[in-house]
Formats: sequence, C-alpha cells, structure tokens
Amino acid sequence: MDYMPYTVHELAHKIEGEVIGSAEVKLTHVADLEDANVGGLSFIASNQYLDKLKKTKASAVIVSQEFAAECPTVAIVSPNPYLSFARAAKYLHPSEKFVAHVHPTAIVHKDCDIGENVFIGPNVVISQKCSISANCYIGAGSIITAPIEMGEGTILVARVTIVGPTLMGERCIIHPGVVLGSDGFGLVDDHGVWEKIPHLGRVVLGDDVEVGVNTAIDRGALKDTVIGNGVKLDNQIQIAHNVIIGDHTAIAGCAGIAGSTEIGKHCQIGAASGIKGHIKLADGVRISGMSAVRQSISEPGLYSSGTALQDVKSWLRNATRFKSIDKLYKQVNELTKKLEVLDKGK
Amino acid sequence: MDYMPYTVHELAHKIEGEVIGSAEVKLTHVADLEDANVGGLSFIASNQYLDKLKKTKASAVIVSQEFAAECPTVAIVSPNPYLSFARAAKYLHPSEKFVAHVHPTAIVHKDCDIGENVFIGPNVVISQKCSISANCYIGAGSIITAPIEMGEGTILVARVTIVGPTLMGERCIIHPGVVLGSDGFGLVDDHGVWEKIPHLGRVVLGDDVEVGVNTAIDRGALKDTVIGNGVKLDNQIQIAHNVIIGDHTAIAGCAGIAGSTEIGKHCQIGAASGIKGHIKLADGVRISGMSAVRQSISEPGLYSSGTALQDVKSWLRNATRFKSIDKLYKQVNELTKKLEVLDKGK
Amino acid sequence: MDYMPYTVHELAHKIEGEVIGSAEVKLTHVADLEDANVGGLSFIASNQYLDKLKKTKASAVIVSQEFAAECPTVAIVSPNPYLSFARAAKYLHPSEKFVAHVHPTAIVHKDCDIGENVFIGPNVVISQKCSISANCYIGAGSIITAPIEMGEGTILVARVTIVGPTLMGERCIIHPGVVLGSDGFGLVDDHGVWEKIPHLGRVVLGDDVEVGVNTAIDRGALKDTVIGNGVKLDNQIQIAHNVIIGDHTAIAGCAGIAGSTEIGKHCQIGAASGIKGHIKLADGVRISGMSAVRQSISEPGLYSSGTALQDVKSWLRNATRFKSIDKLYKQVNELTKKLEVLDKGK
Repeated sequence: MDYMPYTVHELAHKIEGEVIGSAEVKLTHVADLEDANVGGLSFIASNQYLDKLKKTKASAVIVSQEFAAECPTVAIVSPNPYLSFARAAKYLHPSEKFVAHVHPTAIVHKDCDIGENVFIGPNVVISQKCSISANCYIGAGSIITAPIEMGEGTILVARVTIVGPTLMGERCIIHPGVVLGSDGFGLVDDHGVWEKIPHLGRVVLGDDVEVGVNTAIDRGALKDTVIGNGVKLDNQIQIAHNVIIGDHTAIAGCAGIAGSTEIGKHCQIGAASGIKGHIKLADGVRISGMSAVRQSISEPGLYSSGTALQDVKSWLRNATRFKSIDKLYKQVNELTKKLEVLDKGK
Repeated sequence: MDYMPYTVHELAHKIEGEVIGSAEVKLTHVADLEDANVGGLSFIASNQYLDKLKKTKASAVIVSQEFAAECPTVAIVSPNPYLSFARAAKYLHPSEKFVAHVHPTAIVHKDCDIGENVFIGPNVVISQKCSISANCYIGAGSIITAPIEMGEGTILVARVTIVGPTLMGERCIIHPGVVLGSDGFGLVDDHGVWEKIPHLGRVVLGDDVEVGVNTAIDRGALKDTVIGNGVKLDNQIQIAHNVIIGDHTAIAGCAGIAGSTEIGKHCQIGAASGIKGHIKLADGVRISGMSAVRQSISEPGLYSSGTALQDVKSWLRNATRFKSIDKLYKQVNELTKKLEVLDKGK
Repeated sequence: MDYMPYTVHELAHKIEGEVIGSAEVKLTHVADLEDANVGGLSFIASNQYLDKLKKTKASAVIVSQEFAAECPTVAIVSPNPYLSFARAAKYLHPSEKFVAHVHPTAIVHKDCDIGENVFIGPNVVISQKCSISANCYIGAGSIITAPIEMGEGTILVARVTIVGPTLMGERCIIHPGVVLGSDGFGLVDDHGVWEKIPHLGRVVLGDDVEVGVNTAIDRGALKDTVIGNGVKLDNQIQIAHNVIIGDHTAIAGCAGIAGSTEIGKHCQIGAASGIKGHIKLADGVRISGMSAVRQSISEPGLYSSGTALQDVKSWLRNATRFKSIDKLYKQVNELTKKLEVLDKGK
C-alpha cells in the first residue's frame, strides 16, 4: 500500500473534525487502537474500547466529545467518529485509479456504445447493444450476454455475469460471482410436469447500489426486478424475480427474498433471513438474522423469529414439547376454569 | 424484443383455448393486466385480480370459464390460464435461435465428440473425452475439465463449471455460476485432523433438468449423485454428494440437501430449507420455506418448522421461555394431578 | 479411471492393516459393499451394513476387529476402517499428476514470482506482485487481481477469484466459484445513507485448508480474516470480514459466519447454521445444522436451536401458540399460587 501522508490539520479539515493537540503531526495510515503506531490514525466508537484508547500508540485518534479527555494522543473530535474514520481512510488509502484501457483479449461487440475513460479487463465478453457510460470499470472475466446500460462510474470488480437485460445506475459496485438477469424460478404445474414461465422483464439497479460476492438477482417475468438507490446487498444473497427493494435498504449475507416481494426504504434485513414471496415490508422494517418472514409487515421496527440456542439435550426436550404447545394451552385453560369452579364452590 | 404477431385465432388454436369475441385481433406481446395495451395478451389466474381485469387495455386475456363474462376484451378461455399464458408467451416471444458456431477463443480438446448444430461460446474450455450432442449450447466462459456427456439440446447459459465426471440428459438448462462435479465434503477424523475422502462418483442429471444460478451439485463419493427427469432447482442451492432427487421435484432458492439424502418424486422443497443427510423423503412431500428437516418423512403432505415472527421484545420473552417449555409441561401436569386430588377431596 | 493394481498384502502394508485370508488377491478399485466385484476393495464402518457385508462380492473388505469374523472374503483389519479406506482409495485411485505448464492463453504479469513445477491453466489472469510456490496448480479461468502468496502444492481447482491481498499456506484446495478477498459488508449510517468502510486487511489461510464451491471469504477491514491450519469449509459458505477460525475446524455447507466472530479450534459447525457477528465460540464447540447462534459459547459440546418439523396444521397451531408462551408461563405460575392457597385453606 502506498501511503499518502497528511497532517492532522489537513485531514481534520477534510473530515470537518476539531483538533485537540498538535495539528502538525503527520498521518500516514489507519489502524485499530491496538495495532496503530507512528503515523497511524485510529478511532473509538464505544466505551468498550476505552482501555485500548488509553494504551494506544496511534499518532491521532478520532473521538466523540465524550472521550476527548481520555485520549492520550492528538484527538480529532467528531460527532460520528466511525463515519469520520471511514472518510479519513479514503484520503489516507485512496483506491487505485485505473487506467482507461480495453485489454486485447476483451471481446466487445462493435454494436456497443462505450463512454470515455472506461476500463475493460482481460477475457471480458460483451455482446451487442450494450451502453457503458464514462468512467466505468469492467473487471477481468466479466461476461455480458444481454443488452445492458451502465451509468457513470459503475464498477464490475471481476467475473460478473449479466445474462438478461439490465439497467445499472451510477457508481454501482458489483462484486465477483454476481449473476444479474437470469430467468426466475417461474414454473406452472402441468399434470405433475413443470412448465417454464418465460421471463421478459429486466433487472433495474438505482445509483450507488453495491452487490456482494455470488449474489443472484433474477430478471422479472413480465415486470422488472427493481433495486432502489443506495441499496447495499452483501454476499450470497438471492433476489428472486419481480422483487422490489426500496432506497437505502441494506441486506446482510445469505438472505433470500422470494418472488414479487416488496421491501420498503431504509430497511435492514439480517443475515440468512428468508422472506416469503408476494408480501410487503414497510419502510424502516428491521429483521434479525436467521428470521423467517412469512407475512407482510406494516409497521417499522425490529422483528425476529426462531428459538434460543441450547445444549442439545435440553433443546431436544424442548423442541419435542414444542410439538404439543397447543395441547398444553388447552390443558392450562381447563385447569384455570376448574380452579375457578373449585374456588367459588369453596 | 422482436414481436411475432399472431391473430387471437391462431394463438388460441395453438394453446387449445376457446375464443370469445373477435378472433381476428392481432396479438404482438404478453403483459400483465395493468401494463397491457394494444396488441397485448394478458391472463387472470385468481379473483384477486378481477378489478384489474375489468380495467385492462389488453387486446385479449386468457381466462378460466369462471371469469369469461367479466372480461372487457377478447377472451381466450382455458382450464389453466397461467399454463396457457406461459405457452402463448413462447409463441409471441420465442427465445432467440442460436447460430451453430465454435468461437475462435474457445479451447476444445481434439479428443471430444461434438454433435451437429452446436454453439460453443467465447473463452469456453473443454477438456478431453467430452461428448456434446446435437443442438447443445455452451455459453461464454464455461469450463469443463472432466469427461462429460451432454444430451441433445442441453444449454449451459454462460460461465458454468464442470469439474467432475457428469452425465446430462436432453434439454437441460444450466445457469451461470453453477458448479457440477466438485468433490463432496467427505472427511474422516484422524485424531483431530481431517482426512479427505476420495470422490470417485459422478453427477447424473436426467432430461429437462434446470439448475439455477450459483447452485452446486457435488459428485458422489463411491456412487453417483442423481437428479431425476424434470427436476427444477432454483438459485444458490447446495446438493451434497450422493443425494438422489426423484423425477419432477422442484427445489426453491437457497435450500440445502446434505449428503446421501434421498428425495422422492414430485416433491416441493421450500426456499432456504435445510434437509439433513442420510434421510429419505417420500414422493409428494412438500416442505415450507425456512424449515429444518431432521428426520425421514414417509407420508406425502406439507410440513413446516420454525416459529412465527414477532416484534423483538415479545420474541425475546417467548424465545427465552422456549428454553424451559419442558419444565412448564411438568409443572402443568403436577397442577393437573393436584387439582384432581383437591377436586376429589372436596 | 485408470486402475493401479495392488495385492492385498501391498495395500494392507501401506495402510497398516492386518490381513485375514489370502494376501495375494489383486485389488484394482474401491467400491461400496453392494457394488463391489472382482478386484474391488470395500469397507464397513457400522453394524447397520452387516447384511451387505455378508453378501458382498468385493475381493477384500476393510473391517474393524469386531466384524472380522463376519467377513465372507479377505479382510483387512483396521482400528478405523473408514480412515483406512480413504487412504487405500488414494493408492488405488491416485489423483492425476498434472504436467507443469503455463497455458498460452494465461495472462501472468511479469512482476510475479512463479515457483517450479507450477500449472497455470487456460484463461488464467494473474496481476502483479503474486508469489506462487512450487507445485501449485492454478486451474482454468482463475482470476487473481491482488497481490497474493501461495504456499507449496496449493491448488485452485478452476475459476477461483481472488480480489484482495491473500496469503495461502501449503496444500490448500480451493474449489470453483470461490471468491477470496472481497470487501466486507462494512457500512456506516450517515443520516439514512450508507457510507462504505474501506477494507485494508487481508485473507490469511493456513496450511491444508479446503474451501468449497462458491464459498466467499471477505478480507478484513483493518485486521485480517484468518482461517487456521487444516480448516475445512464446505460449499456455499459466507465468511465475513475479520472472522477468525481456529485450526482443524470444519464448517458444513451454506453456513454463514458474520463479521469479527471468532471460532475456536476443532469446532464443527453444522450446515446452514448462522453465527452472529462479534461473538466467540470456544474450542470444541459443535453446532447442529440449521441452528442460529446469537451468543458466545464458552463450553465445548453440541448445541442446537429451532423447532421440530410437523405437518403444517399442527405446526401452525403450535407456532401461533409460541407467540404467547410467556403469557402461558405467567398463567401457570398464578394457577400454582392459587392452588397452594386453596390447598392450605382446605
């Protein structure tokens, strides 16, 4: 990594932080409180790390007002230290600028519209009728076999596959192994034999969408599958046909959203949760990891399902009892009635 | 999309529907009730869309007898409108015929048997002893490093990887990111160190199998992993070594089937459900999404596990109580006995 | 498959087994008890297969002392028949030796350090500053766009993608579709808009690590994501940023480990289980398949969560009741008190 040195003063100015201590100290890299040494910039976001703050060898630490007094080194005070740290890191470790370039092994159909300052890596395949805007990056081994449009500055990191008509907004980041625009799982039962439903819709991604490793987003059947602006999808996610995801929703790894479900804006879907098809989640809904969502949710808030983890013997006893909770209820209600009768008759 | 115009008469004839209204109306495309306009063919499969039917601008709608009277435009009556619609869509939007062709960048071992009218796309790699039947399509970036046989008309959409000996039937569709024939997760514990079990079996797919994006099917250890005719697998599924899946079973996204499990014919496995290894599911078993199947099932029917979703506070209370349901049972049983004693002694 | 014939004597010697019967019998292949015929070596590991043992046509069977008398053919006695069988299989079916070779279509940056006897397959892309040790195998279509180090004898089977700085030990096996070193899912909320956290850490794999099909291991944010020696990961697994996995732990398919979680040595994580972020599992912890782990575990042992599978009607009644178990508890406790009062007042 090449370090871009900044003085505390310069960096604090860029991230709108207030300096306590020498503003002339040089910063060369970010690190956590424990590992940071000379030139290192660190941060503290929770009092759980106060001990580490007191022992840090970092040259400067981004802190909230509350911890400023505890900081043994130069402090940069910010209302949101983690956010400020994320921004500072981008100054100290800027991502490498790519050099616009079409690799000689790339196979790009002549009937494509390629903007300025575009990178097309080795072994990329792009079929006809694609429109790639300026400053896009199409990493090694990516394959595009359907007409697509990519907004400015969008990045396919490497080995992304797009096989159905797809619209991407600006500044999207699509990670390796992602597949966009495949046919959805649309089947009709014809006397016990499955008949495939044709898929004619598109995948539409807004601006600033990030799609994690090996995530799949299927194209719509008749309408489109739509991912809103600023949506962040982690790795190994399944987005089925005709799903709609509202702006700025984040979905953690291994989650699955079944067909035609609509998720609101600013939702947070926990890892490995599963959301049934043809339901609707309101704006601001948050789902815990490993939860099963089988019905629409109309109110924002945090929702969970599942049982607590136990040692296997206890679990087995309880999981077996679970099979007759309903009976237990009835038994308890009868007891309650009997007791009332008995109580009155006393 | 290129539209293939048909008259209502021609199309109704092909899908064996009965026309009510002008049979000479031209149809150019399919669309849902809301979006359809002149030339559009739509369908209605449930009375939940009756309102939309009444307002549709479609030129024709496929309906069941029951809704025929409500149709404001030309109706094509069918006993299964969704199925008829799927078929009609294939006439109006036929999938593009590929042109048989071996791309100059494809690397095909000379010791392969390639049938007539085969497409082999850019950057495809095929190693020795492969047999590709007539009318197969091997999409861009696919890699085959083991001896395989592909039946007539089978399609690898793009970037499919086959690394173990594999037999595919006719008319299979394998989507991007699929990996067939990898070693299974077979390990023996040698005093705390895992020793790998050799995998010598194959992957065997029947006819008309569809395998979704990023699904993995491991080869068998000694015997084969076998997927029956007409089986449909959605995206992101894991099929472990030596699994056997019966004909016409459908498995939804993110499900996992552990090693040596046998699933019957005409089963439906819900999304993100997990099925333990070394068990057996009878023909016609259906499993709800997000269910855990830990034991064999000998009777057809629909099965589920898990708990209902709740707001996090209620859930936490109940999930905590779950840990002592067994105690609660015993408490209730004692109460019942005591009450009986009390009742008698009254 | 090419068979390497051994006599029972030769093979028993190699796997340190004791022969009962003719040591001169020729063995050509492994097979299970049912399918084995002349030249076949089989094994029995559980009395559940005793019937098959008695009918086997195998030329020899690896058995424990306990079953030796029941073996109708030549027996090779071993304290751990399955382990001995795994080893014998490697002699009878040795994996093909590759021929060191850089395929003409491979694109390897000149600023890389490539050891002796290395195979680099077709369409491989390797960027600058990579160090590949002797006897490594980089299968077709693999893409490495970041500086990596590969220890001796490590294998990328095919189509592996590495996009962040990665250290691999010796003798690792990385299966197709694996993505190493992608950015983790690190986001900060900036007034409802997600800001991406830079990822500067590495992926570090120990020796003898196996990573299954389509598994993703993200690079760390500030520190590294670390996978210990001898760790075995199955297919479709998600390992988030900064996870640490102890030596000789095995994780089954479709499991997910969220960010910064630390898993001990010799753990076994069941298929499709989900482990929350920022927790710690002690050495020797085992988790059942489909379990949700939401808290640290400090004691070794087997843990589970979830409910038993039921027919949907029963399940629905019980799952609904689950929503008010807490109320039920309170009701039962009140009943208990009332009954005591009643009992005393009798």
